[in-house]
Amino acid sequence: MARESTARQKLVDAALSLVRTKGYAATSVDELCARAGVTKGAFFHHFANKDALAVAAAEHWSEMTGALFRDAPYHRHRDPLDRVLAYLDFRKSLLKGAVPDFTCLVGTMVQEVYATHPDIRAACDASISGHAATLEADIAEAMKLYGVTSFTAASLALHTQAVLQGAFILAKAKGGPRIAAASIDHLRRYIELLFQPKDHKGRTRQ
Amino acid sequence: MARESTARQKLVDAALSLVRTKGYAATSVDELCARAGVTKGAFFHHFANKDALAVAAAEHWSEMTGALFRDAPYHRHRDPLDRVLAYLDFRKSLLKGAVPDFTCLVGTMVQEVYATHPDIRAACDASISGHAATLEADIAEAMKLYGVTSFTAASLALHTQAVLQGAFILAKAKGGPRIAAASIDHLRRYIELLFQPKDHKGRTRQ
Repeated sequence: MARESTARQKLVDAALSLVRTKGYAATSVDELCARAGVTKGAFFHHFANKDALAVAAAEHWSEMTGALFRDAPYHRHRDPLDRVLAYLDFRKSLLKGAVPDFTCLVGTMVQEVYATHPDIRAACDASISGHAATLEADIAEAMKLYGVTSFTAASLALHTQAVLQGAFILAKAKGGPRIAAASIDHLRRYIELLFQPKDHKGRTRQ
Repeated sequence: MARESTARQKLVDAALSLVRTKGYAATSVDELCARAGVTKGAFFHHFANKDALAVAAAEHWSEMTGALFRDAPYHRHRDPLDRVLAYLDFRKSLLKGAVPDFTCLVGTMVQEVYATHPDIRAACDASISGHAATLEADIAEAMKLYGVTSFTAASLALHTQAVLQGAFILAKAKGGPRIAAASIDHLRRYIELLFQPKDHKGRTRQ
C-alpha cells in the first residue's frame, strides 16, 4: 500500500511539473510515467485516464497551496487591511525561480480545457475560487473598518486572483517574473487607494 | 492564387476558432483541415507545420484586433483619461457570446507553449505588448495632465492587459463573462482613483 501511494503521489508531482512547463494536452501519459519513474500499469492502477490524474493534481494543488497560505506570515497583522496588503507582498515574494516554478497549475489547465473537460474545469474553479474565499473575511473586515461599500468582498477577492492569473500570462509571454511583480504592485496600489482613511469632510488624508 | 489565399485564410480562421475553444496542443492538423474544408496537402502547401500556422494565426489576430481597436469609438474623447476609461468600457462591451468568442487567442496559446515553442511565444508577446503599446500615449498624456508620477505609462498599459487576461481565465473557470466584467470594473475604479484631480494642497477633491 505504501508503495502504491508513493507511485500515485509521484504521478501527481509529475503532473504538477510537466503541466506547468508544457501545458495539459501536450503532456502524455508516457511522459508522466517516465517523469514519475512508474510503469504504465501503475498509472492505470491509480487513474482511469489522464483526465483523472488532472483532477487529482488540481485537488493536490489546492491542498498544497492551501497549507502554504494558511501558514504564511500575513495573517499576523492586527489590521485587516494590513493582512490583505501583506498577502500581496507574500504573493510577490513567491515570484522566484523559473516561470514554471511560480506560475499556476490550475490557471494553466483551465485555460486549455474549460470547454472540453468539465471535471478538470470544475476542479480548477474550486481551487481558484476556494483560494479567493480565504481572503474574503479580511477584505470584508477592512471594508467595514474603512467604510468601503462600493463592491463586495467576494468580488475584490476574485479580482486579486484575476490579476495574479493575468500576471502569470504576461510573465510567460515575456519570459520572467518582472512584469508579474509590476502587476502585483498595481493591485497593491489599487487596494491602498480603495481603503484610504477619509476624514469627516470626506477628504482623503495625505 | 486567389484560391490558395482563401485556403490559407480558412486555415488561419480555423485556428482562431479551434484554439480558443480547446487550446493549441489539443487541436490537430486534421481538425484544422476539416474545419477549414481544405486538404492536408493544402495545409502543408501553406504551412511547414502546425507551429507555423500558430504564428500566422497570432499575427492575423494582431492585425484583426488592431483594426478593431483602431476604429473603436474610445479615441474620440478630448480628455486622455476619458479615452483610457472608454477603452475599458469598450473592452467590457466585447464580453458577449460564448467564452471562446470573447477570450484571447494569444493569451490561450502562450499559456501552454511559452517554454516549448519560442516562435509562438514571441508572436503572442508581440500581440499582447503591441496592443498594450497602443494605450501608452493616452496614459502618458493623462499622467502629465493629472500630475501622476508613481509608475510608468508602459507599466499601467501592460497591467490593463494582465487584468484582461486574468479575467478571461476566471471567465473560463466559471463558464461565463460576468466575473470578467467585474474585474474590468475593478480596473476602471483603480484608474479613476489614480487620476483623481487633486487641489493645490494635495488633497483629493470629492
